[in-house]
Amino acid sequence: MAHPVSPLAPKSYPELPAIDGVRFATAEAGIKYKNRTDVLLMAFDAGTTAAGVVTKSKCSSAAVDWCKANLPGGLARGLVVNSGNANAFTGAKGAQSVALTAELAAKALGCSTAEIFLASTGVIGEPLDANKFEGVLDTMATRLGDGPWMDPAKAIMTTDTFPKLYGAILEIDGVEVKINGIAKGSGMIAPDMATMLSFVVTDMPIAAPVLQALLSRHVATSFNAVTVDSDTSTSDTLLAFATGKAAVEPIESLDDPRAETFGEALRDVLFDLAIQVVRDGEGATKQVSVHVEGAVDDASAFRIAKSIADSPLVKTAIAGEDANWGRVVMAVGKAGEPADRDKLSIRFGDLLVAKNGERAPIYDEAATSAYMKGEDLELTVSLALGEGRATVYTCDLTHGYITINGDYRS
Amino acid sequence: MAHPVSPLAPKSYPELPAIDGVRFATAEAGIKYKNRTDVLLMAFDAGTTAAGVVTKSKCSSAAVDWCKANLPGGLARGLVVNSGNANAFTGAKGAQSVALTAELAAKALGCSTAEIFLASTGVIGEPLDANKFEGVLDTMATRLGDGPWMDPAKAIMTTDTFPKLYGAILEIDGVEVKINGIAKGSGMIAPDMATMLSFVVTDMPIAAPVLQALLSRHVATSFNAVTVDSDTSTSDTLLAFATGKAAVEPIESLDDPRAETFGEALRDVLFDLAIQVVRDGEGATKQVSVHVEGAVDDASAFRIAKSIADSPLVKTAIAGEDANWGRVVMAVGKAGEPADRDKLSIRFGDLLVAKNGERAPIYDEAATSAYMKGEDLELTVSLALGEGRATVYTCDLTHGYITINGDYRS
Repeated sequence: MAHPVSPLAPKSYPELPAIDGVRFATAEAGIKYKNRTDVLLMAFDAGTTAAGVVTKSKCSSAAVDWCKANLPGGLARGLVVNSGNANAFTGAKGAQSVALTAELAAKALGCSTAEIFLASTGVIGEPLDANKFEGVLDTMATRLGDGPWMDPAKAIMTTDTFPKLYGAILEIDGVEVKINGIAKGSGMIAPDMATMLSFVVTDMPIAAPVLQALLSRHVATSFNAVTVDSDTSTSDTLLAFATGKAAVEPIESLDDPRAETFGEALRDVLFDLAIQVVRDGEGATKQVSVHVEGAVDDASAFRIAKSIADSPLVKTAIAGEDANWGRVVMAVGKAGEPADRDKLSIRFGDLLVAKNGERAPIYDEAATSAYMKGEDLELTVSLALGEGRATVYTCDLTHGYITINGDYRS
Repeated sequence: MAHPVSPLAPKSYPELPAIDGVRFATAEAGIKYKNRTDVLLMAFDAGTTAAGVVTKSKCSSAAVDWCKANLPGGLARGLVVNSGNANAFTGAKGAQSVALTAELAAKALGCSTAEIFLASTGVIGEPLDANKFEGVLDTMATRLGDGPWMDPAKAIMTTDTFPKLYGAILEIDGVEVKINGIAKGSGMIAPDMATMLSFVVTDMPIAAPVLQALLSRHVATSFNAVTVDSDTSTSDTLLAFATGKAAVEPIESLDDPRAETFGEALRDVLFDLAIQVVRDGEGATKQVSVHVEGAVDDASAFRIAKSIADSPLVKTAIAGEDANWGRVVMAVGKAGEPADRDKLSIRFGDLLVAKNGERAPIYDEAATSAYMKGEDLELTVSLALGEGRATVYTCDLTHGYITINGDYRS
């Protein structure tokens, strides 16, 4: 299971501050992995609001179904996450396992199961034995602490080669407000959502519907704008929790101008975590930002950017450090969106490689080849049809991806 | 450029018979490859009807645009195919190149440019110098022959590791009627159409609209039901030519019962060629037939089968000989089509691995692992929702694909 750490891993990790109203513990339940933590329990003080975005998969996991049922309540007291087993495609056993886990957590934390949120990640199709949590969750509840945040980031990893955490501190009404986030995911990553779990906690007092609206808005340009392999997980879950402990008046409406300010900071956290997921893409050696501009509208631009970012031929060319704009044209063409071949321009970084439907007169092979050797690449397609624009973030497709995924389950 | 021959290559090749009314020649024009043929000229006798299906790419190549313009005429006297350069995304130069090639061919064959069909395959984005055909096409026209069919099959190859040809002989009204076909393609292969060229010639007298209707019908379950990497070419072209030399009354209408008979034989040829393309999929070591049954309708079944066949995680699992049905569930879920997790059943070959949304009680790990070591795999998903069914044919995703595509253009 141990794969080399991504060359795109961060050189250092942020030390996230404690957030009033949330405490957590991690443990080794031995679900699949040995000698590492694989369970996270988070406990929230009474009054914590919750919001979430989950996978659109028609075969969502039992834990996703559980979250969907509890999200309308908008209140959270506990979160249990396990890695090593996704408890997906496990039939009635899966639903029973989820219900039992929630009961054990609710008992340990002294709350209702309606306030417990769950997420599982790992192998699909193997029943998760929730009895493994018996005793474990109880013990965890007795040793909850407010740091370090590296611990939960590590406990939720599967094929991730580095832990993912990020935070923002903003000032609202002269008071310092914090947002901390963790994420996992490196394969089965595509929008709606990535194969991905992410949990964000803030001390901002904010009503659940407002938190939900901001989360839904900003997921579009963060977690839903990344793709590693076009595959969408059955377990994708992004949850946000607001303990409300910061000493400011609560945001009760989207019309409150502070909602915009808070939303931007939330977006920063979501975006940084999403990019970390791409940079830990299975086998990734390069991160690529695919920009599409001049599309008929933003949605069309997004579909074209996604088509490029998902194309195996574009991704292998990038792995080979080949500025193969022909494959980019192919991916634009297959998107099925309005595009005029003879108006297309393509840039790698600032280097124009194609203009008005053919190789640019100023195309510089040496400069372009040198650019392609970089770790962070920008690819821009201009359609010259309208004002629509979008960006999708991806990584290259290498032998590493095949190695990791050709022998995962066994 | 030379890659190892696919382990799924045929052990022998058919010797296709001459077809009255068509003659051809191949030549080395030195467009990109050295020491191999890269141009094919086919000449059809007067009265030959034509039909075709081309890529749906919004960035189709100049040659595709040329064929689209000539197909409504329904008549053909010549076909020119070159490999090594797709003449795609070459702007006004591309259109000029195509017009010049058609003029040269029309002059060499003594016909109108409206009866000339063209196809180009190879690198995208590099202008094709049609002057290279000057003299070459003239000379070819002086040495046209009716065999062997291996020659044209070889002249149109790009990254193909083996030539693809297949034929059918059927009896209509007591007369022997022949259908010969060739194809190329091994990467950038996905429905609508594959990155793929295919040319089929028959001596059956058949009106162009009837030939077109049969071709369009049977492409759906042949070339449009295969996928190697989900990428769609700008140059995909399937053309059928009917010289009408067989001594039978022509088929003038789809209501003629012989249309059905002829269509079935045509389908056999298209299907065999399409499967050969999959078996030459870049890096392929296994062929996989993905069957979906019990969907709400056939179109839904097709989209689910395509989602499974295109999934990098399913394809890498197959490469790893891992019966990872969890990834199959994932791919069903991401298709966005109606599916009920708890009614799903999955079989590898005849082996039931999952039933009613969980691992089958009779699941036999040893037997399934043994099955996965085979070269030809059948994967069946039963949705238990309706009567819709479809099959999509694909191959596994291996290190070979990365190797081939990480260094193609340079």
